[in-house]
Amino acid sequence: MSDRLSTDPADDTGRARDAAGPDTAAAHAADTAAAHAAASAQLLAALRGSSPLVHCITNSVVTNFTANALLAIDAAPAMVDIPVEAGIFAGIASGLLVNLGTPHEEQREAAREAVAAASVAGTPWVLDPVAVGGLPVRTALAHELVAQRPTAIRGNASEIIALAGAGAGGRGVDAADTTDAAADAAAHLARTHGSVVAVSGPVDLITDGRRTVRIANGDVLLTRMTGGGCALGAVTAAFLGASRADADPADAFAATVAATLVYTIAAEIAAAAAAGPGTFAPAFLDALALVTPGEVAERARITVTDAATDGSRA
Amino acid sequence: MSDRLSTDPADDTGRARDAAGPDTAAAHAADTAAAHAAASAQLLAALRGSSPLVHCITNSVVTNFTANALLAIDAAPAMVDIPVEAGIFAGIASGLLVNLGTPHEEQREAAREAVAAASVAGTPWVLDPVAVGGLPVRTALAHELVAQRPTAIRGNASEIIALAGAGAGGRGVDAADTTDAAADAAAHLARTHGSVVAVSGPVDLITDGRRTVRIANGDVLLTRMTGGGCALGAVTAAFLGASRADADPADAFAATVAATLVYTIAAEIAAAAAAGPGTFAPAFLDALALVTPGEVAERARITVTDAATDGSRA
Amino acid sequence: MSDRLSTDPADDTGRARDAAGPDTAAAHAADTAAAHAAASAQLLAALRGSSPLVHCITNSVVTNFTANALLAIDAAPAMVDIPVEAGIFAGIASGLLVNLGTPHEEQREAAREAVAAASVAGTPWVLDPVAVGGLPVRTALAHELVAQRPTAIRGNASEIIALAGAGAGGRGVDAADTTDAAADAAAHLARTHGSVVAVSGPVDLITDGRRTVRIANGDVLLTRMTGGGCALGAVTAAFLGASRADADPADAFAATVAATLVYTIAAEIAAAAAAGPGTFAPAFLDALALVTPGEVAERARITVTDAATDGSRA
Repeated sequence: MSDRLSTDPADDTGRARDAAGPDTAAAHAADTAAAHAAASAQLLAALRGSSPLVHCITNSVVTNFTANALLAIDAAPAMVDIPVEAGIFAGIASGLLVNLGTPHEEQREAAREAVAAASVAGTPWVLDPVAVGGLPVRTALAHELVAQRPTAIRGNASEIIALAGAGAGGRGVDAADTTDAAADAAAHLARTHGSVVAVSGPVDLITDGRRTVRIANGDVLLTRMTGGGCALGAVTAAFLGASRADADPADAFAATVAATLVYTIAAEIAAAAAAGPGTFAPAFLDALALVTPGEVAERARITVTDAATDGSRA
Repeated sequence: MSDRLSTDPADDTGRARDAAGPDTAAAHAADTAAAHAAASAQLLAALRGSSPLVHCITNSVVTNFTANALLAIDAAPAMVDIPVEAGIFAGIASGLLVNLGTPHEEQREAAREAVAAASVAGTPWVLDPVAVGGLPVRTALAHELVAQRPTAIRGNASEIIALAGAGAGGRGVDAADTTDAAADAAAHLARTHGSVVAVSGPVDLITDGRRTVRIANGDVLLTRMTGGGCALGAVTAAFLGASRADADPADAFAATVAATLVYTIAAEIAAAAAAGPGTFAPAFLDALALVTPGEVAERARITVTDAATDGSRA
Repeated sequence: MSDRLSTDPADDTGRARDAAGPDTAAAHAADTAAAHAAASAQLLAALRGSSPLVHCITNSVVTNFTANALLAIDAAPAMVDIPVEAGIFAGIASGLLVNLGTPHEEQREAAREAVAAASVAGTPWVLDPVAVGGLPVRTALAHELVAQRPTAIRGNASEIIALAGAGAGGRGVDAADTTDAAADAAAHLARTHGSVVAVSGPVDLITDGRRTVRIANGDVLLTRMTGGGCALGAVTAAFLGASRADADPADAFAATVAATLVYTIAAEIAAAAAAGPGTFAPAFLDALALVTPGEVAERARITVTDAATDGSRA
């Protein structure tokens, strides 16, 4: 563990910094975790002022919740998922999400067009490879699209492992693996495609292949509501759009961390107000709308490690 | 302003009538605003008793919320959006909504069939030209369908301006223009196609090309929840169906005003009970179900003008 | 009524058993109603431990609510509704729902594949023939699929009557007939196809062609929320999957009764907490997640009759 540049997630948000004293590695780690928390708070404030237009090509189960999550966070959602129009729209949007949950034929063609147009226009885009592995249509499309170098890739551990070619995938939309088990696959995907890879789970893991951030915020109710993962992909596209992550790969990493952090902190706030998974959903949308940059900085439970040596945790 | 036949929206619902005294124009205007409020209350009561069957061809983001809004208002929703069936169903429905938000190929064909059948059967129908302007597939279809003379057209200002050929459209589903800026385009559309045109915004504008009603009810939370505008199109189809607006164009105007008024008053009631956009949605459905004709008459904030001279406001 | 083997639904859950004394028929009937209540409670407990994977091919209006209902009850939903993938997935799922509400072309082909694969793999499956009767595309597909002997068929009275060939169907998704009016059609369908048939209504009716169970639980708010019936089809597939109903037809009957009972009791619990149809939906999902086996046993209002002689009620 001596090579891990991390803070203790139970002693979060870099507040251990002052106590770290002369230990350079610990101080650096604390700074880094604190820096992510502070940057995330700033990016939330920036997003709220910019109302980024987020182009979503997503599955039929979560369209409504995804649009509401984007509106709550103060982004402007637009579902444009037919050929001809998708390519046009991806060129003017601030960010693009391509989620492969129900990839009907027109959507597949629309996704190809949108990704090509995003690449030309420099629109940051997120690939969510829902249930890849055992299902051939989406798996083939995911491999085709990932080669186009998505700005970010978001999935659960089984999906990330399957997309990296290291596993057979989960049983549909379910994650059968832990995020730590996907750490190597995530780092490999990140380095291969120049993407930030975000793995959702009890502890979320985000890596660019060099650094890995773990976020211990969130609540299990996020998994008892459909779209809990899918909408995070859209919110990630919103943060990427708001931070103009297309110009600077470092921004893409910070924006992806911010999206996950804000999202999981909103889940914690909502869980405290919810009686069950049904009342959690509206409370979560309220929390996405009302969570403040200050709350984000204060509640962040972030750990930072070196991705190259992180595999020892898996 | 002297040629405007209006009441002060801040002094709403025609209650200024008693104070208007001998001023004929003011009295007439007050009567008209009050008459719309009273007629809307009556139409709500009539809808609640008739449970009109509303055929919806709408986008994949808002199907669920739209159906729930119709059920809340006591209409019976049915989404029949495949070829062959759509034409049959439009002939037996009380009202039809065609919303172009995600116009997949089968839906486009279904929309054409449904509109043709509605025209033959006299089923009143509403066209919602979502995001027309820059996106060619829906824009071409919107122009094709509007030529079939929809009973009502509902959109935001940018969409109405684009459909009238006077602008390039908004940035997707977002309205970049105010309803007053769309007043001329709306009146032009109304006169050209014999339609009632409803423009959604902070102040809603409804015109048949002769008269223009503005409704200052509503709440900004309607814009923080996806489907806030789209479901109004369906509710408009329900009011048109309940008021048998097919037989009398005057009824179509009254029914469209009633739909917008009831809908925006329900939004006000819901906003008072909501902590944010997430809890607003269920509260809004509750309010649609529970709002009384008396509340509609009492809370209405209506202004009536002559459409021909209304452009001076824009 | 002398030939009915029933308890009084107003004196439910078999608690009349102790008072039934030497009357064999009444005691048997009480045992049977009590046995269903107890078995339903046990099946709920078993489902909560097994998290069955439920493959849904369903309509675009209710995908989200259906997935959330499954997650609430502790099942794992997956919407896989494109050709090639649907057949693969039906072979590995615990249960399958085929709902014909919006049967687009790809969904129709996916449904055929999934049903064929479920038959081969022994995956229990539910057919929900939404709005069959007057609409030819879904009606033809429903007749084609029902010949594949679904484990269970769920619909409202008009749909069951239409599927049995005894009526013209309702007006879309609306039930124009009572469940008792569909008793003969349900028993006929059950015997013809070896299916359990569940008819939703103010009193739900479930029959395998020999026995008929009526459940008097539920709340009218279930009908003011879209997907109230459709999600029950998915929950039925979850109970069938959890009880491995494919191996034993008796289990399919018990599982279908359990699904309806748990679902309608959750509706009662939710209605007590709801201000209207909007707040009912999240409260209902909470109740699905929180309802206990003990509450199910205690609140059950079940009547059991002999299906062959039950037609006299209609």
